[in-house]
Amino acid sequence: MSHKEDSVPEFVLGHLSTPEGRAASVVLACEGFYHDLLLEPADPEPGDDVTVSAFAGTHVTVAAVALHYTTDGSQPEPGADHTSSVSMQRSGQTWDTLTWSYGECWRAVIPGQPLGTVVHYVVEGVTPDGETIRSPHVPPPPAIIVAEDRDTLRLTAETEAHSRLPQVYAYAVDTEAVPEWLRNAVIYQIFVDRFAPDPGKEFAQPPDRSGFYGGTLRGVRSKLDYLADLGVTCLWLSPIFPAPSHHGYDATDYGAVEPRLGDLDDFEQLAQAARAHGIHIVLDYVANHISNEHPAFVAAQRDRSADTASWFRFFSWPDDYDTFLGVRSMPRLNTDDECVRAYLIDNACCWLERGADGFRLDHAHGATHAFWSAFRTATRAVKPSSVTFGEVTDTPAIMRSFVGRMDGELDFILLEALRQFFGFHALYPSEFDRFLRRHFAYFDGYSNSDLALPSFFDNHDMNRFLFSVGGDVRRLKLAALCQFTLPEPPIIYYGTEVGLSQLRPADPLEESRLPMLWGDAQDQDLLGFYKELIALRRKTYPVWRRARRTLATDDVRGIYAYACGRYAVVLNNSAQPASIRLKTTADAPLTPVLYTDGEAAFDAETSVAWLPPYSGIVVHGQ
Amino acid sequence: MSHKEDSVPEFVLGHLSTPEGRAASVVLACEGFYHDLLLEPADPEPGDDVTVSAFAGTHVTVAAVALHYTTDGSQPEPGADHTSSVSMQRSGQTWDTLTWSYGECWRAVIPGQPLGTVVHYVVEGVTPDGETIRSPHVPPPPAIIVAEDRDTLRLTAETEAHSRLPQVYAYAVDTEAVPEWLRNAVIYQIFVDRFAPDPGKEFAQPPDRSGFYGGTLRGVRSKLDYLADLGVTCLWLSPIFPAPSHHGYDATDYGAVEPRLGDLDDFEQLAQAARAHGIHIVLDYVANHISNEHPAFVAAQRDRSADTASWFRFFSWPDDYDTFLGVRSMPRLNTDDECVRAYLIDNACCWLERGADGFRLDHAHGATHAFWSAFRTATRAVKPSSVTFGEVTDTPAIMRSFVGRMDGELDFILLEALRQFFGFHALYPSEFDRFLRRHFAYFDGYSNSDLALPSFFDNHDMNRFLFSVGGDVRRLKLAALCQFTLPEPPIIYYGTEVGLSQLRPADPLEESRLPMLWGDAQDQDLLGFYKELIALRRKTYPVWRRARRTLATDDVRGIYAYACGRYAVVLNNSAQPASIRLKTTADAPLTPVLYTDGEAAFDAETSVAWLPPYSGIVVHGQ
Repeated sequence: MSHKEDSVPEFVLGHLSTPEGRAASVVLACEGFYHDLLLEPADPEPGDDVTVSAFAGTHVTVAAVALHYTTDGSQPEPGADHTSSVSMQRSGQTWDTLTWSYGECWRAVIPGQPLGTVVHYVVEGVTPDGETIRSPHVPPPPAIIVAEDRDTLRLTAETEAHSRLPQVYAYAVDTEAVPEWLRNAVIYQIFVDRFAPDPGKEFAQPPDRSGFYGGTLRGVRSKLDYLADLGVTCLWLSPIFPAPSHHGYDATDYGAVEPRLGDLDDFEQLAQAARAHGIHIVLDYVANHISNEHPAFVAAQRDRSADTASWFRFFSWPDDYDTFLGVRSMPRLNTDDECVRAYLIDNACCWLERGADGFRLDHAHGATHAFWSAFRTATRAVKPSSVTFGEVTDTPAIMRSFVGRMDGELDFILLEALRQFFGFHALYPSEFDRFLRRHFAYFDGYSNSDLALPSFFDNHDMNRFLFSVGGDVRRLKLAALCQFTLPEPPIIYYGTEVGLSQLRPADPLEESRLPMLWGDAQDQDLLGFYKELIALRRKTYPVWRRARRTLATDDVRGIYAYACGRYAVVLNNSAQPASIRLKTTADAPLTPVLYTDGEAAFDAETSVAWLPPYSGIVVHGQ
Repeated sequence: MSHKEDSVPEFVLGHLSTPEGRAASVVLACEGFYHDLLLEPADPEPGDDVTVSAFAGTHVTVAAVALHYTTDGSQPEPGADHTSSVSMQRSGQTWDTLTWSYGECWRAVIPGQPLGTVVHYVVEGVTPDGETIRSPHVPPPPAIIVAEDRDTLRLTAETEAHSRLPQVYAYAVDTEAVPEWLRNAVIYQIFVDRFAPDPGKEFAQPPDRSGFYGGTLRGVRSKLDYLADLGVTCLWLSPIFPAPSHHGYDATDYGAVEPRLGDLDDFEQLAQAARAHGIHIVLDYVANHISNEHPAFVAAQRDRSADTASWFRFFSWPDDYDTFLGVRSMPRLNTDDECVRAYLIDNACCWLERGADGFRLDHAHGATHAFWSAFRTATRAVKPSSVTFGEVTDTPAIMRSFVGRMDGELDFILLEALRQFFGFHALYPSEFDRFLRRHFAYFDGYSNSDLALPSFFDNHDMNRFLFSVGGDVRRLKLAALCQFTLPEPPIIYYGTEVGLSQLRPADPLEESRLPMLWGDAQDQDLLGFYKELIALRRKTYPVWRRARRTLATDDVRGIYAYACGRYAVVLNNSAQPASIRLKTTADAPLTPVLYTDGEAAFDAETSVAWLPPYSGIVVHGQ
């Protein structure tokens, strides 16, 4: 079926998913006064001077800008003894054609600091009237130029309101790099309620998709042999904390296990057993929001002077408060509040001590950069090999701003391109190739040591890829072959390897979260292919990080071929069979090492690959 | 009346006049492969290495980029002996949120050259298929992603098609600076047919506004005493060459004078007399297009092998050809054609020899940068004190790209702000102040020596300012006071100084081109004010180029005050009277030197200015 018929829009990217949202975002970026979050260098090491920049847009005049910072871990207080101040200098004017207006850039340098320093800073401008404004600051538009669509624009901005409150920024001066095990991982995403019930039990059959199917931590443990045999090296578990919902993204307690899923002991046993299988455990962790049934919120809503009142932002107490994308059952946390930080970070550290190896950070751009700097510093101290990777559904520029604050970010930008190319033929091979080159080059210099970009082509928030291509397993294999021969660590959404799909479009989202297939329900051919693919990945992972050579982009025939090191990959992304001759300078003939389709063939003598519709091969030269 | 009722849209800025046009322009800027025309340094001097950059956008992959150049004045031919080549290097990737895509930047350096060199260069990319594409290159969009609004977008782009053909670029290595007389000029714009008939004659009364009113060059000469008494130092004459229209922007011969206006002798006498009055003469010169009655076009349309066929771009000979904004009676010239260049430049040089002091360049961004480099080099050689200033109705970024190619550009960006602030109250004082600071800072480093930005608040292509403010002379005086206390040379559109306005909105445009008022019809009070203002400007012009201090921006009361050197200007841009106390650190009291309104007052003892509605003053400290 065409994705036009789906009731869930393809590519969920929040406020940037529509051209209107993008235009509004570009316009908003021209309006306020703000620090742009990009540091030079991006991830400061000991002794590095750090250049910080600020921007004053269309509607803001600042007569002077100052940067106030501390190096002792305390919050900056302009004028106080423990706070240093530097004047920022005007560094240029920008012109924006879309808003037909000028902007102004300012810069300052924070001197190099010793290892372990966490630099906290604020950026403050002084208006011509002598008013001090702290970044980020978005002034109301002058009444006189309110246009009809100004409301729409504001509405778009509203979901971002939290990130537009005055901020204390921070960065950690360290030499941390992405732990090698994450860089080389094959990650398996498990939606715990839907993966495996306790041994000997069957999945429940709830009346609707948002019910409980009965997956548990003991269930996951019982499948470790399956997972190890499959070859994955890391499990990403959906939230396991007490929560009213089946998905768990609305926790009521970060220190316990949801009783439906098991208990602390179950978790520790799972972690231990996984370790014995050579498998890491990564927990899904939500810093952005909690459940409205969380005691902290219940107390804050009951009593405005409650200790936890500062955890939240009440626009008008008790019923109007900041939320996750307007969902009232998910009040947003103020991650700059000291108590919130202590609560989230202390609990995270406990989970590392209980055996977790790291965290997948839900809606990570909802918490501040300073929060994530503190989070990583603390978790690394407890477990130096632990990892963090975030869900940042924003632009590559914003993604880059999180370098040094976490080890990786889920690659939503690549997700789009993979689905467009393999799922919808909305990109030609030449366009896909151009995208891949520029995308990885854009993050180059970071991704080599400071940032991992785990790849995926579907997850729990969109139609499964297999459903999007009408159940055509050939196309799934082809997309997977490409995914596993890219530089970054691949993620498999549970069940993808055995043909799990959907009955109807993913609306509500739960349709993409059907229970795992076990036993005869599994597509053994597909599973066998995935095992081969994972084995190849684990054997060759350094290869795909090398310089990538494009061998062919045939937009008419849908052929895309590339090589890294001594390996070449040929993809036929069309409904027609095709043959292609590979040029080789090697003396020995090329050897095929993986086919997606049993009918694909490779003639070593002539170096000609013959590829049925939607099939691919990997070949290897001596 | 409100400008909403006008039938001519406020601010004619071509394809960038609407938000849609601006968005399309931003999108188009992300699509092609092109040299962005900005050099580093912008205006190379002898020995300067010059960095040239190129951009490959959304739809273009280049595997390699080369820059081919000559230093002997010849056209570059890649591979030929006289042509040097340098490889350009990838210098980074950009992300564009609006188009949700990556772009790629390339750079190369052309080594420093001796004085007098004109460097010609082309930028060529090689696609993965081995095809060579020459900048600028806009590929057709891949058919598969043609959106419904793609046509609109193309349509917008079409008027720019000429500038998107492959180009030979050029820059001149020189030490030319803006002649001081232009920097210090007070310019008076004359629409010759509408300024003054032969002495002793009256204006004709044609049946409609596009008829001939009978102004002549002798008429202009007869008014030199008036103009010298007014105090202007430069006349910009609308095109004086033979042309079927009254406006002359469709010439049939660049070597003669339109007989209605006079003859060559009349021109030489005018130039000579003007010089005796200390007044320079600048001719309006149209390189972009000619009349379809010009012999070169008549011949090209009659015979496709005519010598002049290469002067034009026939999309489909003989009736489909490139034009000025779609006006079929104005075929566009190919300013890169050697014969066109020789024709335009040789004639321009002749006019300098006949006594002209320079040129106002009509629709200057319609001709290539290489053309203007050649034009300035040649005209300067003939008359070192001659000037060029262009009409570039595009973005400040594009305006900057013409630095070094001409001495100045009409400041259409400032025009908008002046009309918005003084004409329509569409800007607050604080916004206007912010605009002025950023605008002049954006061009700073150029405008000090390499670029003049003549200021104006109306011209022959829009409603006269006085008509736009309902004939309120107070507001005209206020706008003029501001204009004359800005850094750049002011232009007065003929008749503005004596209250010439319109009878109805400027549709057709000719309504803003009514015959000059003479004798009793002149507003003597306004004329007296303009004389004072011009006298002040001529006495103080270096003052307004100094650092500008904002003294007050009162958005509630509409007060705007600023100071340069020892002068301060206070403007009350509101319908209410206001008083404002100026702070002074001087020992001696401040002295008022100019009022726009006889009822305005300044108390030197208390430094309080009392300003009636829409009035302003200039005060001077010791």
